[in-house]
Formats: sequence, structure tokens, C-alpha cells
Amino acid sequence: MSFLLNAWYVAAFSHEVRPGTPFSRALLGRPVVLYRDAEQRAIALDDRCAHRFAPLSQGRVVDGVLECPYHGLRFGASGQCVHNPHGDGRVPAGAKVRTYPALERYGAIWFWPGDPLRADEALLPSFPFVDPATHVTHDGYLHTRAHYQLSADNLLDLSHFQFLHPDTLGSEAIARGDVQSGNLGDIVWVRRSAYDEALQPFVAQGFGIPPGTRVDRWMDVRWTPPGLLSIVIGVTAAGMPREAGLIAPSAHWLTPETERTTHYFFAFGLPKEMGEAAHELVRYAVDGLMKPFECEDLPMLEAQQRNLGDNDFWAMQPALLPIDAGAIRARRVMERLIAAERAAGEVPARTIPITPVAGASRAVA
Amino acid sequence: MSFLLNAWYVAAFSHEVRPGTPFSRALLGRPVVLYRDAEQRAIALDDRCAHRFAPLSQGRVVDGVLECPYHGLRFGASGQCVHNPHGDGRVPAGAKVRTYPALERYGAIWFWPGDPLRADEALLPSFPFVDPATHVTHDGYLHTRAHYQLSADNLLDLSHFQFLHPDTLGSEAIARGDVQSGNLGDIVWVRRSAYDEALQPFVAQGFGIPPGTRVDRWMDVRWTPPGLLSIVIGVTAAGMPREAGLIAPSAHWLTPETERTTHYFFAFGLPKEMGEAAHELVRYAVDGLMKPFECEDLPMLEAQQRNLGDNDFWAMQPALLPIDAGAIRARRVMERLIAAERAAGEVPARTIPITPVAGASRAVA
Amino acid sequence: MSFLLNAWYVAAFSHEVRPGTPFSRALLGRPVVLYRDAEQRAIALDDRCAHRFAPLSQGRVVDGVLECPYHGLRFGASGQCVHNPHGDGRVPAGAKVRTYPALERYGAIWFWPGDPLRADEALLPSFPFVDPATHVTHDGYLHTRAHYQLSADNLLDLSHFQFLHPDTLGSEAIARGDVQSGNLGDIVWVRRSAYDEALQPFVAQGFGIPPGTRVDRWMDVRWTPPGLLSIVIGVTAAGMPREAGLIAPSAHWLTPETERTTHYFFAFGLPKEMGEAAHELVRYAVDGLMKPFECEDLPMLEAQQRNLGDNDFWAMQPALLPIDAGAIRARRVMERLIAAERAAGEVPARTIPITPVAGASRAVA
Repeated sequence: MSFLLNAWYVAAFSHEVRPGTPFSRALLGRPVVLYRDAEQRAIALDDRCAHRFAPLSQGRVVDGVLECPYHGLRFGASGQCVHNPHGDGRVPAGAKVRTYPALERYGAIWFWPGDPLRADEALLPSFPFVDPATHVTHDGYLHTRAHYQLSADNLLDLSHFQFLHPDTLGSEAIARGDVQSGNLGDIVWVRRSAYDEALQPFVAQGFGIPPGTRVDRWMDVRWTPPGLLSIVIGVTAAGMPREAGLIAPSAHWLTPETERTTHYFFAFGLPKEMGEAAHELVRYAVDGLMKPFECEDLPMLEAQQRNLGDNDFWAMQPALLPIDAGAIRARRVMERLIAAERAAGEVPARTIPITPVAGASRAVA
Repeated sequence: MSFLLNAWYVAAFSHEVRPGTPFSRALLGRPVVLYRDAEQRAIALDDRCAHRFAPLSQGRVVDGVLECPYHGLRFGASGQCVHNPHGDGRVPAGAKVRTYPALERYGAIWFWPGDPLRADEALLPSFPFVDPATHVTHDGYLHTRAHYQLSADNLLDLSHFQFLHPDTLGSEAIARGDVQSGNLGDIVWVRRSAYDEALQPFVAQGFGIPPGTRVDRWMDVRWTPPGLLSIVIGVTAAGMPREAGLIAPSAHWLTPETERTTHYFFAFGLPKEMGEAAHELVRYAVDGLMKPFECEDLPMLEAQQRNLGDNDFWAMQPALLPIDAGAIRARRVMERLIAAERAAGEVPARTIPITPVAGASRAVA
Repeated sequence: MSFLLNAWYVAAFSHEVRPGTPFSRALLGRPVVLYRDAEQRAIALDDRCAHRFAPLSQGRVVDGVLECPYHGLRFGASGQCVHNPHGDGRVPAGAKVRTYPALERYGAIWFWPGDPLRADEALLPSFPFVDPATHVTHDGYLHTRAHYQLSADNLLDLSHFQFLHPDTLGSEAIARGDVQSGNLGDIVWVRRSAYDEALQPFVAQGFGIPPGTRVDRWMDVRWTPPGLLSIVIGVTAAGMPREAGLIAPSAHWLTPETERTTHYFFAFGLPKEMGEAAHELVRYAVDGLMKPFECEDLPMLEAQQRNLGDNDFWAMQPALLPIDAGAIRARRVMERLIAAERAAGEVPARTIPITPVAGASRAVA
């Protein structure tokens, strides 16, 4: 497993982890259980009892700690067994499960699989437009049987809109447009512009643009390791300045389930001041995008993975095109960070083989 | 494969192998065919023709020998080809399939995967309460996608009744009770007692105990390598001597299908002198237990196996509790016996990968 | 992978590759796409875009070249990218997919996975009776989860008719008959004769023979590497010369999908001069054979493969019978040719793991 360990990953949307009900998800090749303690704080533990490896997620939350469904041992936020119901009730010192730093932000529960001492909240990139304190949000989830970097490629090169999503997101103006990219430290940005474009009805309607109107459209993508993207789509009347246009920001968070499968979380948010319109628009965006994401991107990503097989991406000698510049920048950042982590002797915790979830599933707030 | 080879294993219940019909089952990673010869003796052979590896179990029993479905070669109890229908009918000396010592006892067909010269009937542990000559019996079968030793753990530590089977078998009195264990040579025994217990209706009714009666319950488990257990549950009015109580003995036989899947055979028996009541009670026990076994134990065992993955049990550093003493004793005996067998140069026959049977199946007499 | 590379293999029946529609099939462990160019010539390429490994077979045929469904790159018969729709449209020199020599003959599209310089049409064996220019043909396809050499064994030793197909193709006369085999260079022939046979109704009716007639039947099998067989079944009244009889020729072409799965193509053909009767008879043969092939041969081949597992055929020490002579000759030829190819340093192209197609499928013209 060659994952970046010292990084924040999304483990679940906040609404997926309900009070009193443990939630299980495989993350970076590990079974993880999420639950809320007595203060409703999100706790992340290995989903594997220290005693006989039973999945703690099938147990109960009792007084803010997790009770194993097999023999009733209980584990708290520190991972230490805090209750042995049998005999004299003594608890062996070794009865401890691994715990992960976790925090809740932007409508999601984040976890840190690496060194807990380095888990600094300040390292979390900013996604203010999906902060539920100030914004109305809506989100979607897709399970993808493909390496998370293939999804990052997809989001960092939106030229595929024209070919993979010709009926919803793309148009012939995209190939005619221009694209730039760069690094800001470990951040990668890609800025794509299309000019004098006739939008597909799905996009036009989302922006409230009358059919047939010619527009300029820009798509600003920001990627932060390990796979945290924001995409801002902007539209203005053709030839008009950007300031006269409208924007739709969204978050796209990639968390590897295994080396070959990925949890894809995405969310749209608009300011609460927009009122009911914000509610309608974020729902419109998520619900409308789910179809091309699920029926066009997902099969493509999975077909790529099948064609990649066990081979290393670079060993396949992919042809490099100018449109790939941003995606290649991101791959290079990840390769550098992972290599540095390995050189520093970071050792991943013992992992177990995860059988990927069958079929694609979907969770919408 | 790290199986103990010089040992008796249950291959099938007697009623599963009907006259004239070959029966196929994977045992210890090998495909085995069972059939009855002209004298109705159970014969166990590799389920793989010596000629082109066709499954003999798909052929016919002809004159007490097995005919291959592909080219009609016939094989007898010795494993030697006894008939070649083609050309001059000569049989090459090498046309021989492996045969296994087999015997029929306690309503089951047993086979010996190791050195045939060491297959001594006297090594079979005693299960007199399921001897069909003297007892009325009923049996059940479950296919489990977990290592057989996880099932042995389960049966040797019945403290899980309280947590995994709270509605049928367990109660809060169990954790309050006491437990002892020990070795008698290679045999491991565990004796658990619960005092002043209010039984769940399923158990109380089986013993004919009026609702609400307080009882003392004891559970005596005897384990013999490689995974042959008897469990005697006894109940008496709270504070009364055991001699005044009732007992229900049962047999539990674990046969590995592969390193990660297990055939679980279990049976209840009561003396024929009990008449119709014995019939009713053994059916009541098997039919009633099938639900917690299938819906509670089986998913737990399979979840443990998924969490164990390819890792060695000890490499996972399981926390050890006093309740585990018996199960650990049995693991230690198995480890010692397998190591001794390997040291003695026992070489398992060439095995082939077995695709475990899909789904759990069930066979009840 | 131990395939013979410098050889013609059937990739598809001609009718499977329709104008304008790419066709995908895994061949020798590789994903291959077949399509027809502007002149309707069959083109065979790796089904994996040079850019990001997308399956080209999910794209469109545009002006006789294949357009990738993901980013719109186009690839022609040479494998070279001929169109990049993005930016300045320049095409990197390395944007090239592997192409395979292909030709169309005998109602099938053939491809050559080895050195293109050695792909000589003259190396294709002759199957004149399924030449669509002169013959009426009908064909069938089965996907088999077994090594292709197990299928060759099956076709080279028709003694199995008597045991595996007793109700359609076999009779007790076959074991009583005689069989000869030999080599002609790399070609292997097997000639089997049965005398004074009462044919099963399916065979008798196909030859127009009244029920109960005693016949002599001969079955001439010719095998050419890598797995291209013709089988001519002939029938004459018992004791009459062959010249007085009727024959039914058929082609049987085996193409490995993976080391453990095989594409089985078969076809019957009769001269166009026979008119409507030819149409009826070739349909009768294919449709009638599909049932024993699918319900009897296919499960047997797949069971053999399961019993063979990862083991080498010879390591399993199969008993050798006189009926095996032809099949063993063919195995020896293949072993010699593959060893020679390896000794000559032939290096297979990078392959990727193919997930075999689920279930058996069937394509009939």
C-alpha cells in the first residue's frame, strides 16, 4: 500500500454517522469504525476488537463508548478497553484498538491515518463554501472501483466534458478554449476557459441563463494533497468580464478505500443569505450531476483501472498531452510526498485485505 | 496448508451419502468423493480421475465401483482403475486415484487424510450419545467462511452467549458465573457455571422448566483434536445438586474445507428408551439452534475471518482474557501436533485450490 | 503466460464485427478491439488508449478510425494517434497503441499476436468447407472457463462421445471401434472408426439415415497449431465403402482468452450447390450440437480446470491411455513450438490481467 499517511482524509459525511449508531467504512485498506461519543464528537477506531477481531461497528454505543458485539468488551476514544464484563473485570493492558485523530468540518468527518502527533487541524485545506454554519449544502457519494489518482486525473482535466459528457456538461467550445496550470507549494491549480460557448441545457438552467445565449465559461480547479479538490465553475455573457458572471463552487474529496477502490465525496454549497434558492440550486447541482458521474465517469474510471491492472501507472508509458499538465503536477506532488514519508521511516499500521463494497452506492444528504 | 493430517475428520453425515449416488465435498483443501460400495461401506477417494482429472463424483456407481463420467474408467475402493472400456482394455499401472481410510460411526462418515497405516479406529473420540444404535439423533450442518479454529474458539468460550445470543441462549448470569479449564493429554475441557439464572424461554422450554424458575446452569465442553467437541448443558433448580438436574449432550465437529472455510457438523442425541420425547427434543434443539448459529455465530465468525485476512492469528496480537483459557489451550495443542507432524516429515498430498461453496448450506437429517 | 505468439488465432466471427461498431474481446490475456475501417477491412488494436488506458472499444468509429471515448484522441490502422482535438492539436510521437496483423477468412477475423513481420497469410490452415464464397455456413460460440488445451484434448479424443454424450453423439460401438493417429509436421491427425453402429437419432437424422440402420462411422480429426481443428464425420451403411457414404465437415477453433479461459468457435459448412438443404443442415448441426457442447462438454472442461487448478498438466501425472495418443501428440507439438519461441527470445507484449467474462455466452450467426 503506497498511501500518504500524514494527511487528512474524509472518512464520511457528517450525516452518515448518527448518534448512537456505529458506522463502518474501509479507509486506506483498513476497516475503520466511526461513532459519536457522549459529547457527539466523532471518534475513529480500527473496526476490529483487540480481543478476537470482531467488528466493533456491529456492536452498540453504551455511555459514549463502543461495546464489542461478541464478548462485550468496551472501548473508548483512546482505543483502550474500558470495561471487561467477565470474571473479575480486569482489563489487560494490551486490550487496545488503534484510534485515529478525527475532526468534523465542512459537513464531513475527517481522519488522519498517520502519526497522531502530526495531526494538525490547521493542515486542513479551506472549503468555506460548504461550511454548514454559513452555507446551505448538499452532497453526494460514489464508490469507485479505481485508484483514487485516476479520479484526480479526471477532475484535474475537465477537457473530458466534451467527449464523456456531451449531453450535460460539455460542448465543442472546450477543446477550442485554453488551459493553464501551476503549483503553489503542494497545491496544484488548473484554470480552463471556454469562449463563446453554447451551454448544454443542464448547465445553462443551473445558472439561470436563457437557452441559446452565448457565454464564456471558466473552470478553476484547486487540488490539495492527498486528493481534496475545489472546482469553481463560472459563467458570464460572451465577452463580458468575469465579475459580471455567476459562479458555482463545489468540493470533491477522494479517499482511497484500497489501492484500487475509492470513496468519492462531493458537495455543493451556497450562502445561506440566498434563502430557498440556495437550497434548490445545490440540490439541482448534486442530483443532476449524479447521473453523468455515475453513468459516464464511474464506468470510465473502472475501465481504466481494469486496463491498468496491477501495473504501475508510469510503467504503462502513458502518452502525455498538454491537457494533462495539472494532473501530472498532482501525481508528482503525491509521489514526492509519499517518497519523503517512506524515507522518514513512516510505517503504515498493519493492514488487512479489504473486500471492496459490491456495486456503487450513493449517499445524499 | 497447515492442517493436522493424522487425525479423523468428519467428511459427511451418514445420510448425506446415499447408496448409488456419489457425494462430493472439499475437505482440507482437497476434492473428495464419497460413495458406498456393494456392501454399503463408505469409500473416500480423491474426486479427480487419474486420467484427465474429471470429477468422479459426477459419474455413476457401477457394481460397487465408481465410473468416470468423461471416458468411463472405473475405480474401486483401493483407488486402482479396475476397468478401461477402450481398445484392448488394458489398464496402466499408474491409473490410480488416492484413497483415504474411512469409517462410519456416530451417524457420520469419517476420513483420515494422513498416513493410512496410522488410521486407527481406536483413535476416534467417543460420542456415545449420538450412536444411532442406542440413541435417537438429529443433526445440522453449516458452511462457514472462517478458519476452523475460530469456530473452536467460539465453542470453547460460551461467554459469548450473553452478548451474541441474548435472546435465545444467554443471560446476564453468565458473566457473573465461573469458568475453569484444563488439559487431559491432548484433550481440553472447559467447565462453565452460571448461578441463579433466569433462562431464556428457548432453553427453559427445552428442559421443561416453567417460566421464571431460577436455575443453576453448567456447560461442560470437551475438545479433542483436530476439532471434535462435545458440549453437555446441564440445568438444575438454583442451589440444587447437579444430580437432580437434566442434561442435554451434543456433538460439534469441525472439518476444514480450506484454510479459510469450515464444515460445521453438529448433532443432538437422546436415549431411545425416551421414546417419542427423544425425537421431539433432538429436533427442537437442532431446529431451534440453527437460527442463532446461522444468523449470529456464522456472520461473526466470517467477520472475524475478514478482519484476520491473511494474517496469522498470533501476529495480530490478540488480547488474552481469562475466558480464553480453554480456547488457547486447544490452539496450543493443535500447534504442537502440527509442528510435530511437520518435524516428522509428514507431507500433505498435492492439493488443489478449492473454490469455497457459495453461501451457507444446511443439511438436516 | 505461455501462449504461442507467432500464430493465427480467431479473434471473432466476421458477423460479430459490424461496420461502425467497435468490438471488444480479451485474447491471449490482452484486451483487443476490433473494428472495420473505411474499406471495411478488419483492424485489431490493443483496447487501451495510449493516453489514459480508456477502452477504445467504447468509443466511436469516425472516418474509418477509432475515437477514444474519454478525451477524443483518434487512432488508425497503424495504431498511431492521428487526431488530437485539444489545443494546438499536436500529437506526441509516443501516442500509439499496439496493432495486430489481422485478416478475414472462412467467416472469421484472424489476428496474429506475435512478430508482425512473420504474419504470413499463407500460414493459415485451409478450411475450404466454411469459405463463405462457396459454402453455406453456420457457426456457434462458447466461452469456456478452462485452458484451451483441455478443449483440444476433448476434440482430439472423441471416445468421450460414448460416456459424455450417450443420448446424442455416442454409442457403445465407439469403444469397440479403432483409432489411429499421427503427425504430419506440426499437424496431428486422428482417425477413429466405429463399425456396425446404431446411431443416436440426432446423428442419424442429420445424415438422413432411417432409424435402426446399422452403419459404419468414421471421425477424422485434423489439428493444426495453436488450436485449429477440422472434424469430418462420415457415415456409410455397415460394411459399405466410404465412398458410398456421406460426410459432414466442421471447423473448431480454440483461442485462449486467458491461461484458464477459452473462446471456442465452431462452424459447419456445405456447398452452395446444395441449395436450401445446405442451409437447413448447417443450422441443424450447430443448433443441435450447442446443447451437448454447452450442457455436457463445457461443465466437464470447467470441472477439469478446477481440479487442475494452478498445477501444470504434467505435474499432475495423468494416466496415459491409447485413446490419448492424438491429444498427447498435439500437446507435444505446442510445447515444442512455445519452447522454440521462447528460446528465440520472443517477448510477449505487456499483458494485463483479464477478468474472464461471467457465464458462458453464445453467438450464432
